[in-house]
Amino acid sequence: MIPRYSRPDMVAIWSPEAKFRIWYEIEAHACDAMADLGVIPRENAEAVWKAKDVEFNVARIDEIEAVTKHDVIAFLTHLAEHVGAEEARFVHQGMTSSDVLDTCFNVQLTRAADLLITGTEGLLAALKRRAIEHKDTVRIGRSHGIHAEPTTMGLTFARFYAEMDRNLRRLKTARAEIATGAISGAVGTFANIDPAVEEHVCEKLGLYPEPISTQVIPRDRHAAFFAALGVVGSSIENIATEIRHMQRTEVLEAAEFFSMGQKGSSAMPHKKNPVLTENLTGLARLVRMAVIPAMENVALWHERDISHSSVERMIGPDTTITLDFALARLTQVIDKLLVYPQNMLDNMNKFPGLVMSQRVLLALTQAGVSREDAYRLVQRNAMKVWDERTDFREELLADEEVRAALSEEEINEKFDLGYHTKHVDTIFKRVFGD
Amino acid sequence: MIPRYSRPDMVAIWSPEAKFRIWYEIEAHACDAMADLGVIPRENAEAVWKAKDVEFNVARIDEIEAVTKHDVIAFLTHLAEHVGAEEARFVHQGMTSSDVLDTCFNVQLTRAADLLITGTEGLLAALKRRAIEHKDTVRIGRSHGIHAEPTTMGLTFARFYAEMDRNLRRLKTARAEIATGAISGAVGTFANIDPAVEEHVCEKLGLYPEPISTQVIPRDRHAAFFAALGVVGSSIENIATEIRHMQRTEVLEAAEFFSMGQKGSSAMPHKKNPVLTENLTGLARLVRMAVIPAMENVALWHERDISHSSVERMIGPDTTITLDFALARLTQVIDKLLVYPQNMLDNMNKFPGLVMSQRVLLALTQAGVSREDAYRLVQRNAMKVWDERTDFREELLADEEVRAALSEEEINEKFDLGYHTKHVDTIFKRVFGD
Amino acid sequence: MIPRYSRPDMVAIWSPEAKFRIWYEIEAHACDAMADLGVIPRENAEAVWKAKDVEFNVARIDEIEAVTKHDVIAFLTHLAEHVGAEEARFVHQGMTSSDVLDTCFNVQLTRAADLLITGTEGLLAALKRRAIEHKDTVRIGRSHGIHAEPTTMGLTFARFYAEMDRNLRRLKTARAEIATGAISGAVGTFANIDPAVEEHVCEKLGLYPEPISTQVIPRDRHAAFFAALGVVGSSIENIATEIRHMQRTEVLEAAEFFSMGQKGSSAMPHKKNPVLTENLTGLARLVRMAVIPAMENVALWHERDISHSSVERMIGPDTTITLDFALARLTQVIDKLLVYPQNMLDNMNKFPGLVMSQRVLLALTQAGVSREDAYRLVQRNAMKVWDERTDFREELLADEEVRAALSEEEINEKFDLGYHTKHVDTIFKRVFGD
Amino acid sequence: MIPRYSRPDMVAIWSPEAKFRIWYEIEAHACDAMADLGVIPRENAEAVWKAKDVEFNVARIDEIEAVTKHDVIAFLTHLAEHVGAEEARFVHQGMTSSDVLDTCFNVQLTRAADLLITGTEGLLAALKRRAIEHKDTVRIGRSHGIHAEPTTMGLTFARFYAEMDRNLRRLKTARAEIATGAISGAVGTFANIDPAVEEHVCEKLGLYPEPISTQVIPRDRHAAFFAALGVVGSSIENIATEIRHMQRTEVLEAAEFFSMGQKGSSAMPHKKNPVLTENLTGLARLVRMAVIPAMENVALWHERDISHSSVERMIGPDTTITLDFALARLTQVIDKLLVYPQNMLDNMNKFPGLVMSQRVLLALTQAGVSREDAYRLVQRNAMKVWDERTDFREELLADEEVRAALSEEEINEKFDLGYHTKHVDTIFKRVFGD
Repeated sequence: MIPRYSRPDMVAIWSPEAKFRIWYEIEAHACDAMADLGVIPRENAEAVWKAKDVEFNVARIDEIEAVTKHDVIAFLTHLAEHVGAEEARFVHQGMTSSDVLDTCFNVQLTRAADLLITGTEGLLAALKRRAIEHKDTVRIGRSHGIHAEPTTMGLTFARFYAEMDRNLRRLKTARAEIATGAISGAVGTFANIDPAVEEHVCEKLGLYPEPISTQVIPRDRHAAFFAALGVVGSSIENIATEIRHMQRTEVLEAAEFFSMGQKGSSAMPHKKNPVLTENLTGLARLVRMAVIPAMENVALWHERDISHSSVERMIGPDTTITLDFALARLTQVIDKLLVYPQNMLDNMNKFPGLVMSQRVLLALTQAGVSREDAYRLVQRNAMKVWDERTDFREELLADEEVRAALSEEEINEKFDLGYHTKHVDTIFKRVFGD
Repeated sequence: MIPRYSRPDMVAIWSPEAKFRIWYEIEAHACDAMADLGVIPRENAEAVWKAKDVEFNVARIDEIEAVTKHDVIAFLTHLAEHVGAEEARFVHQGMTSSDVLDTCFNVQLTRAADLLITGTEGLLAALKRRAIEHKDTVRIGRSHGIHAEPTTMGLTFARFYAEMDRNLRRLKTARAEIATGAISGAVGTFANIDPAVEEHVCEKLGLYPEPISTQVIPRDRHAAFFAALGVVGSSIENIATEIRHMQRTEVLEAAEFFSMGQKGSSAMPHKKNPVLTENLTGLARLVRMAVIPAMENVALWHERDISHSSVERMIGPDTTITLDFALARLTQVIDKLLVYPQNMLDNMNKFPGLVMSQRVLLALTQAGVSREDAYRLVQRNAMKVWDERTDFREELLADEEVRAALSEEEINEKFDLGYHTKHVDTIFKRVFGD
Repeated sequence: MIPRYSRPDMVAIWSPEAKFRIWYEIEAHACDAMADLGVIPRENAEAVWKAKDVEFNVARIDEIEAVTKHDVIAFLTHLAEHVGAEEARFVHQGMTSSDVLDTCFNVQLTRAADLLITGTEGLLAALKRRAIEHKDTVRIGRSHGIHAEPTTMGLTFARFYAEMDRNLRRLKTARAEIATGAISGAVGTFANIDPAVEEHVCEKLGLYPEPISTQVIPRDRHAAFFAALGVVGSSIENIATEIRHMQRTEVLEAAEFFSMGQKGSSAMPHKKNPVLTENLTGLARLVRMAVIPAMENVALWHERDISHSSVERMIGPDTTITLDFALARLTQVIDKLLVYPQNMLDNMNKFPGLVMSQRVLLALTQAGVSREDAYRLVQRNAMKVWDERTDFREELLADEEVRAALSEEEINEKFDLGYHTKHVDTIFKRVFGD
Repeated sequence: MIPRYSRPDMVAIWSPEAKFRIWYEIEAHACDAMADLGVIPRENAEAVWKAKDVEFNVARIDEIEAVTKHDVIAFLTHLAEHVGAEEARFVHQGMTSSDVLDTCFNVQLTRAADLLITGTEGLLAALKRRAIEHKDTVRIGRSHGIHAEPTTMGLTFARFYAEMDRNLRRLKTARAEIATGAISGAVGTFANIDPAVEEHVCEKLGLYPEPISTQVIPRDRHAAFFAALGVVGSSIENIATEIRHMQRTEVLEAAEFFSMGQKGSSAMPHKKNPVLTENLTGLARLVRMAVIPAMENVALWHERDISHSSVERMIGPDTTITLDFALARLTQVIDKLLVYPQNMLDNMNKFPGLVMSQRVLLALTQAGVSREDAYRLVQRNAMKVWDERTDFREELLADEEVRAALSEEEINEKFDLGYHTKHVDTIFKRVFGD
């Protein structure tokens, strides 16, 4: 976890205090359920709630763990210091450490998922606002980094919206993947604990009981969770890449907001660098790097081994914190992005008229010229514009073979920008609904 | 693609013949839609269907591509050889190559997903059958590779069933991710083609229109698709690892079916090696290695670049073919797996009675012994069994401090296996329903 | 392996014919060594060489393997068909299949490495030639995609040369990593075969004896090998990315060679797309995706398991073939790259004079202005150029505060391009030597 | 960075204090060199050394950075607070932030590499000691987890030694990869700073001047560095996996040292779990996950972008800290590993005599039986032992067809363990030298 790429709400989910609080709730709810079943005395269950408002002392727990070398036992020992050893003697009865650890981890992951979902919704709102704002702002569409045909900046924002909307769905699915808890005992057989305890604890914590656990909750769930985060990260990289391209000196169709107090470079004060989106590109790599370890975690030995644990101690916090930060940063970038419509037009006309070559090709075909001939005619004139920056329309008008197929009026009509934007509304309706 | 790890139906999806057939259908359906719209003459649309039963000549298309250096143009040129240059002149009108390539790729992926879904269903059937067969076959549950408490082989199969059932759901979601098509022209603005063409083609091919495409269908979809396959691969590794462990000489609780004609090793004829599940472990790595490149493919430049293409030419076929093969191989392994219940019992009793230590610990606590003391008592006796292979029950009966808390009858009762299997039915109901 | 991304020499290394030829040589040389030791009769060793010029029948071997389910036994059976069952009866004596398989794999990898080394040398030659050609071709250096200070195209080529020269060294180290052979028997103890056999076979095949093998050659070697290839792939992506940027419409400082016969796009004939370098970007991902599986292959169970085998069947050929092709393609791109020096100058002057701001900042500091003030002065004038495209030099000349520190002559002197290229020779000497 | 998987020396390398100390040294040495060149006054260079013993105030620097949004400028501002604004005005002259950042990062990486090298040497010493100790401790070699032929525990340790010795070499090569510095100015042209400054600073910091840098040191170096760490991590997983297998209940040939105070499990006190090696398995995944992002960092845009930076902020510390910890933990595991020779013998004889089947097969062939027949004879008897746990030697003695080829004495001789260990000395000499 890198402080500069972190936000406090997500960090708080992963604090030791938050973890011990969840452990406590699991144990206390489990005692209630056991009391309901008549397995332990009601007063012992109630006694556990005495610690309800206790802020657990992390340093003290660490101290005990240094002796016991076992985190859950250390916590239980500390809990007994609050509740009383005698009253606390039924706490954790019939349970295994993983019941606490795995259920807690999934509580943390669902909370993390909630923040990521909120973050994505914020990004969607920004994208939608900018899409509507620039629905008709014409810019050149590019394939291979090369000018193709006109499109609009609104469509650019809209496609990022659609992509992030899919990611919202993926995050919700990912949340459901890990929204399970397990209180099933040593190897998951419920030998020492009734399934009703699991049901009660899960209900209280907003989870579903894991249908079949071993000692652990199966890790294919977590693999799917982190894989979904990896996809979201990749989409962030996608948007960031677009902005980095737009901001490059020769293109300059957009720029990250730049406060005058900020120094872009120690040596070159005029530089407005797209450092936020470059940073997002790197953060995407960090989010993505958790995917393979999470998948390698799936194949545990028999009913469980602990190889997954160190991996999750790292990627659990790091990946969610990084992605949460990245979503927020990207939202801010989109929100404040400086858009330069005039530069968009200037760029589009770098090779005057050439972007209309597709239309001309089509018109020639429709006028009865064979595909091969039409292609040759368009290519011939296009090459001149490319090499000498003449005007494509004028070249066509001056080309006798072209004029044999198309009238002056027909040629001129091919250079109307409205032709390219006529379906923007249709697409917006598809993306944003009515 | 490695022939020995391939099955013909999946391979067929990725043949050049299959690809050109899909290209053809896209073009032909698009012509129909354009004729419906009155954009091209009806007879030209109908003419295209003349090639309906043609087996396209891959060698001829390659030959043309060697000149044009463009695969779609090469195909269209060849198509014109069948349909007639004049009749074919409206084919592909207003479309861009990616309209054909991307829509085709998604058709192939949905077909591949269908086979993977069928394969998973086959595996589920095998797992369910074996789970029911061995519902009550007791074996020791293990954590850290160390004996923990009894479980049953049926629960082992059942948890793999539950995991694969989640994978079935993931595969269906993954299929939906890529079940879209796009016929939206150069940069996705429908400038030269009506959205109705896209709708018609998609409907005919069993796809949904991509709400907003650029020149390409957005690659976050494919990233999510291959990520799902990576999770399935990881689950295959999980099951394979269990079987490899079960078959090792010292454990020998199960073995892959071994036909007498097969030679296990050139040098050690007695060896029955778990080569199929080892192979599956490797295949899982191959499936998983497509995930990161698929995610790296998401960030295309502007409306598209072609960096994703070579990646997909490789992982499209390779990953689906490998996973399809792996699912089939695993199904066969599960189906024919030799299970050795007697060895399971023998293994469980390697340290006689020790697996019941958890129960004894619990009984001591319930009898009023403090957790710390109970732990100490159990550990003291357990260590003897561990070191000297004496019988745990007898050690307990002979331990005065234990006996002060528990009667002989109470101790004996703790060694009843039925205690551990009493909730198997509950779990089966959760997993398989009623 | 994708035919369109393959070259015949590398493909040939991985053919079944090549593999069986190497197997044969291993077996035949091993027989010689055993005859030398007096372990087997000399005439039996000599008999094996009867098959010296035989082209092994792959179909026949496959046929036998279909029965025996064991590839090495199938080959030995087929070999006996050539040599005679009686004469061949000592072939493979005391050896285990992995002795043949692993030693063969390393022979193939060393041969593959040799081709990759040759390919890299070819690329280096092209880069050096172009570096010298464009040593003094001034272009703007960019950080964050934003104009920074002038550099030269020669330096761009030179840094790619230096990077690829490091890769050459890495490839040579990688080759040494896997240039070992093992003929050490079942679990590597030489129980049934004398170490002298290993030495003889390795010497004949150009390998070193593996100091300690188990049944297999340790896989950390192969992990290191494929990791090195991954680095080379990443460098290819680095160079490809530079060229893709240079070719984009707004930059156009270079372009991949474009033959007039080639059709860049089915719809936009004027487009000269950097498809080769985009393709290389994707190929880099494919090369890189072998790294993690190769590393996952290291942890084999005990003396060996076969989980690595399927991975290597795939990545052995695919990764080397892809990288070999990529090196060749990149060499061709570099060799024929169209470079546009005039466009480089035009781009540099997009914001006239602004790229010299660093020099002015320095001059102001040296003239006694505080860093903070100097920064403010430069930034003030730079912003004007940025926003209004005025001339930076003229702005400075008109700024009284600036003029208080610097004379007209001093300001003018800061706009001399030679200032930035004065150490190009020094750097070239570092990179290319004298 | 996870405190429980960290050691203080490595953590210290990555502290803000250590970083600012290195920044300071780079700036101070650079001033010296500039004074030597006569570019700045000597007294200003000397003034910088006034801060020689200053402990830089991280909080203060962070405070300044909150305003300037630029870390190097914040540091320089703070430095001026110590040195005096007037005296400090030449500090950083002609340099760019990356000169400081990249050179510092490489200093940190070389220091980290030194600790990793020391850690590996410690592990090698432990492995060598245990190898010699158990040179003749016979255990069964296993392929596919199945008993193969006898080997010794010493050979197991020796092969891990050889593997780690290769990793030592790789780490030294990796260290050399990143032991370069760059003080080359804005885009690496030395326009504003003399190459002699770079040479001086590098010499003082124990680095080599980067032959050609842009604004940054090329990232292929770092990719190669982290790739090497990934290989080391994979080897750690390899050793850890062996120990996990050895410790499993049914095998129990070794166990991690277990202090009585430690509680292995909250529920099953008798369990001695291989938690350290399981943990190492997870740590290996964490080390490995840095490899791909490091490779993705290679392709920076033009002379630099900052996408690599966030990645390196994370993986720089995390990966070296994790690997350092893992090496130390593994050293301790090896050092104290409990080895159970009697269990090794017991395991070997699980199927009495069967492990000698290879020798018998060979003997039959040598006695003139055809390979096919010998295989059949051995397999026939081996199957009986496998199925009924009879004694292989006795089965052979009772098999008339076998006896027709081999005498009783010849058969008995095949069951001598010394046969398998006769080359252990040879192998040890290869691995450890004389």
